[in-house]
Amino acid sequence: MAEPTPTNTLDDAAEEALSPAFVRSVVDAVDRADKTLVRQLVLPLRTADLAELLELLRPDERQDLVEMLGTDFNPEVLSELDESVRDHVIELLDPKDLAAALTEMDSDDAVYLLEDMDEAEQRLILDQLPASERAALEQSLDYPEYSAGRLMQRELVAVPPHWDVGQTLDYLREAEELPHEFYEIFVVDPAYKPVGTVPLSRVTRSKRPVLISEIMETEQTLIPVEMDQEEVALQFTKYDLISAAVVDEGGRLVGVVTVDDIVEVISEEAAEDIRLLAGLGEESISDSVLQTSRSRVPWLMVNLVTATLAAAVIALFDATIEKMVALAVLMPIVASMGGNAGTQTMTVTVRALATRDLVHFNARRTIAREFFVGVLNGMIFALILGGLSALLFGNEWLGAVFAGAIMINLVVASLTGILIPLGLDKLGADPAVSSAVFVTTMTDVVGFFSFLGLAALILFY
Amino acid sequence: MAEPTPTNTLDDAAEEALSPAFVRSVVDAVDRADKTLVRQLVLPLRTADLAELLELLRPDERQDLVEMLGTDFNPEVLSELDESVRDHVIELLDPKDLAAALTEMDSDDAVYLLEDMDEAEQRLILDQLPASERAALEQSLDYPEYSAGRLMQRELVAVPPHWDVGQTLDYLREAEELPHEFYEIFVVDPAYKPVGTVPLSRVTRSKRPVLISEIMETEQTLIPVEMDQEEVALQFTKYDLISAAVVDEGGRLVGVVTVDDIVEVISEEAAEDIRLLAGLGEESISDSVLQTSRSRVPWLMVNLVTATLAAAVIALFDATIEKMVALAVLMPIVASMGGNAGTQTMTVTVRALATRDLVHFNARRTIAREFFVGVLNGMIFALILGGLSALLFGNEWLGAVFAGAIMINLVVASLTGILIPLGLDKLGADPAVSSAVFVTTMTDVVGFFSFLGLAALILFY
Repeated sequence: MAEPTPTNTLDDAAEEALSPAFVRSVVDAVDRADKTLVRQLVLPLRTADLAELLELLRPDERQDLVEMLGTDFNPEVLSELDESVRDHVIELLDPKDLAAALTEMDSDDAVYLLEDMDEAEQRLILDQLPASERAALEQSLDYPEYSAGRLMQRELVAVPPHWDVGQTLDYLREAEELPHEFYEIFVVDPAYKPVGTVPLSRVTRSKRPVLISEIMETEQTLIPVEMDQEEVALQFTKYDLISAAVVDEGGRLVGVVTVDDIVEVISEEAAEDIRLLAGLGEESISDSVLQTSRSRVPWLMVNLVTATLAAAVIALFDATIEKMVALAVLMPIVASMGGNAGTQTMTVTVRALATRDLVHFNARRTIAREFFVGVLNGMIFALILGGLSALLFGNEWLGAVFAGAIMINLVVASLTGILIPLGLDKLGADPAVSSAVFVTTMTDVVGFFSFLGLAALILFY
Repeated sequence: MAEPTPTNTLDDAAEEALSPAFVRSVVDAVDRADKTLVRQLVLPLRTADLAELLELLRPDERQDLVEMLGTDFNPEVLSELDESVRDHVIELLDPKDLAAALTEMDSDDAVYLLEDMDEAEQRLILDQLPASERAALEQSLDYPEYSAGRLMQRELVAVPPHWDVGQTLDYLREAEELPHEFYEIFVVDPAYKPVGTVPLSRVTRSKRPVLISEIMETEQTLIPVEMDQEEVALQFTKYDLISAAVVDEGGRLVGVVTVDDIVEVISEEAAEDIRLLAGLGEESISDSVLQTSRSRVPWLMVNLVTATLAAAVIALFDATIEKMVALAVLMPIVASMGGNAGTQTMTVTVRALATRDLVHFNARRTIAREFFVGVLNGMIFALILGGLSALLFGNEWLGAVFAGAIMINLVVASLTGILIPLGLDKLGADPAVSSAVFVTTMTDVVGFFSFLGLAALILFY
């Protein structure tokens, strides 16, 4: 694991910029306190590469590196860092430098940095800003977390519909307070309500006298400022948007969300679903042992309770097991097949809810489908497992009990796999958070109960 | 479940366009064969909404709807559909109309539609195209599946560095074969190798005499045409790209990948990881019972084999269980705690590998961290469970055996949870595909073996 080999797939991504050899040489230079070499290696890096490097370093090395870079440290790196690393680097910087950097950023990036700081840190930085910018940032921070208002930038290009392309181009050349980059121009009425959108490429492809109203798209996706970012991402994905106008309750244009922020949101939300399905908190690879343990113990504790519930079901039948130890051998198979089948259905359901492929209109049909899938797969595995166990233990009644329990558990698995996430969604809870524990508890309990119960009833009654 | 209620969260997304009531009224009109009403309801829909509607309908209703729309059916809808629904709709369309639609699309959308068809269907459509377009599409289809070559569009804007802004704007206004929309202009040398990129907004903000070479970014992310789409998506995410130049082996510009395709790739790849971790094939909510069953049986079959392996371990100790049935009651808890802890570590590792947060440089450190997390969590739960079981069964030796097995299994869970995905990645396999089955088999086998083995050794030796 120590020496990188050329055939290795781990580092395919970072081929040029951050090869293991490069990282190693930076670390060596930092450890030797060779400031000149460190700066020579690190200063030409692109922002995202410097962020990646900082995440790879140990905290003490990271501190040394930031100090060696001094005022040449580019604060734009901050918005690319993992939360725990970002907190660390922010501590290392002078609030004055940080405030100066914020004024240079588009407002969405500035908000992104500020929102994760605690109250005192935020104050410290905001107090260094000019009043107008401070007010604007404070207003953005007033929007709910994970809302479009936090995601949007205030810098945008808006023109009236009666302008022509020539006027618009002249305005773009002269105006001061424009975003760093933009891809669409918003067309607004005198009340600043959006009436259309023009892709910038269409502006450049039209002759100067053409009116904006002639080339604008009137079919637009307006994002309410309070909309949850997951919902915003769904709109972008569905309509293939590059940017979208954000409007307040009065329908007035207040900002713009761009697709680069949405790419971030989509990655984060998918990662969150994956984490939640596996019972993980917000953890990243750069967390410490204690942080990691603390994030994982709660879920293991929940699992302890549910596993104990399943054990209690087994304890009900200890007399039955005593009569035939083969039951203890086979029972985990019933539970495990049910758990897997339930997880399959649950995963499909949670994803389909997240992407809105599962809606009211097709809910009933989908539940019916899952039921029949459970029956079909139940029959397949009941036949296989019942037959095999009857042969192996020379006891066809044991085979029948095993087959019956598998059948019951796979149908229950299918139904709970879809009904539990649907129910949680209906209650307004995130189905990714808690579905897994309900589903596997259900399949464990039903698996043990049906198998041992059938055995007690049929084999020993 | 049948009647939509206003407080419901299921349909928040589709508030205006596709409310359950709207879908219901379309279905009613289709069932009554009221062509006029159907067309009146459906024709104003945006492409993405029509796609969503088609996915919600039953196959027979879908066919009726497409036939009622006739030549007004917008073929751009096709690229927004789920695969099984897309296949169905393509069958309903005339190959001639389909070919005509393809010539109107940007080349990446055309390739996207063609690549999923079988050889014969492709031929049928390609033969309807003009020779030059056919050749271009055939060349795109020659690139490996899931490569940048399949994802890119050939239509792009490229200018020489010695042009000025005025010349560039004039060219944009005059040129015929430009993409529908574009966000960046690529700057190429006489050999058509990219030397820089200019965001379109910078072109519009510069005066006509300014040279392109003065305003271009020379720091660019070039995408090799053979690069895997997951890798391309990582580059876009890392460097916040809107579009990127694709180059052939000779370094010549051959196409451009835009962020809207990448948004799709990111969603798909994350969904794929989620599916693979749960043991699911490529399935969607619109699949039939048989398709769904067929996609899920293989994984359940694998699980059957591994569960049988675990059962075989238990069978080794049937004499021990016969002496103390409490062992059969407690053993699923050991396996289940290990399974959960292993899944947590595995999920973090698979994600970190996918996002390149886990690379060679920090692999050893991360393994050590997981080991210590396993030891720490092992101690916590060994104390709780050992103590409780000693009290409950009035047998401190049983408690000690239980605690020892929990400790062993949580450490093994942590280590296999990281080492198995790392190992699979090193072998060039996708760690999401098969990690889960290895990890849970390991924790089941080790859980049962350590618990029953320690019991046999300590309680009855």
